[in-house]
Amino acid sequence: MQEREISQAVIRRLPRYHRYLGELLENGLERISSNDLSKAMKVTASQIRQDLNNFGGFGQQGYGYNVKYLHTEIGKILGLDKKHSMVIIGAGNLGQALANYQRFEKSGFVLKGLFDVNPKLQGLTVRGVEIRMMDELQNFVRQNQVEIAVLTLPKEKAIEAANRLVEYGVKAIWNFAHTDLTLPENIIVENVHLSESLMQLSYKITRYEKEHSKVE
Amino acid sequence: MQEREISQAVIRRLPRYHRYLGELLENGLERISSNDLSKAMKVTASQIRQDLNNFGGFGQQGYGYNVKYLHTEIGKILGLDKKHSMVIIGAGNLGQALANYQRFEKSGFVLKGLFDVNPKLQGLTVRGVEIRMMDELQNFVRQNQVEIAVLTLPKEKAIEAANRLVEYGVKAIWNFAHTDLTLPENIIVENVHLSESLMQLSYKITRYEKEHSKVE
Repeated sequence: MQEREISQAVIRRLPRYHRYLGELLENGLERISSNDLSKAMKVTASQIRQDLNNFGGFGQQGYGYNVKYLHTEIGKILGLDKKHSMVIIGAGNLGQALANYQRFEKSGFVLKGLFDVNPKLQGLTVRGVEIRMMDELQNFVRQNQVEIAVLTLPKEKAIEAANRLVEYGVKAIWNFAHTDLTLPENIIVENVHLSESLMQLSYKITRYEKEHSKVE
Repeated sequence: MQEREISQAVIRRLPRYHRYLGELLENGLERISSNDLSKAMKVTASQIRQDLNNFGGFGQQGYGYNVKYLHTEIGKILGLDKKHSMVIIGAGNLGQALANYQRFEKSGFVLKGLFDVNPKLQGLTVRGVEIRMMDELQNFVRQNQVEIAVLTLPKEKAIEAANRLVEYGVKAIWNFAHTDLTLPENIIVENVHLSESLMQLSYKITRYEKEHSKVE
């Protein structure tokens, strides 16, 4: 394992490598050349080699990649060889949708609890996980050594909840609220700003139409 | 408006500029220096100038940016000055969560319909928008000139639905399914791969712990 800083772009591509290799594994493939992997993923073979070289490289000349080994090793780099305990704050549609993703559990993200302020939701369960009220959060986080908190709350409530969660000891926040959180440096924040993704889509439509109308 | 290719990184930052400027507007701010904008957004002032220069630049020396003007112009670049009609395919928790985002509507994304295969959902409404069955999709897309389809379906169904939607004439797909869609080049695809975002989070936790344990 090398020590140098890994670029954001590489970090963004790693989960995709992991997903493709997982699919190849499911299809029973044992080895793949970097060219074939490149074709499947629509990334150049040299890009793949370069990305993997950040972590010491995993290929053998004239042999290609061992699918299972590479899948496992990328999984380790991504921290998927360990369990991560998780809570979701906000048990609305989005919170419940996330609670229902079995895929997360398979990758080691274990949902311990769902929290909400709406007393009507108290005691309901999603996939066997109970919805609890916010006054239980502090003890729950400590008792369950919760590592990751998922925030599916409106902006103002998300900021308040994030500060509390940090105080209670979570290491990371997966933030779906429409705001950037300002938290201590040792707290990992990963944002999913859905509005921004939709705007990127509409940028691309606009751009495409502009270019297309020029040609005509 | 210049003709050169805009990088992905700039496109990713534009919606964030738009969001911050919108907040400043709400707070009644008329002008902002690039330094103040830089502090608020935690991006260097030179980065901001460079990003905006891709579109001709909007600042005046010693004056700063006119917040409302810049907000409007970035909105235009993002295509938010036009209405975009949209359908959601998959009316489960995630589909309903997205249907409930009022923010999208405010930015010009008008939800026309929700579609599902589950007959139990037929005729129910989410925020006044009816859930319809898939056999109505073709006519509905044509009659409503649907531009964007949002896919909140399992992988295999998403691939099938995407192909149908392209045939029916949608321009863009906002894809939440756990797969990369292979579609004609003129179709815009924007992916939201939630598992991959969560894996990036766990990568960062793992990395942080590794670096931290080294220091001790």
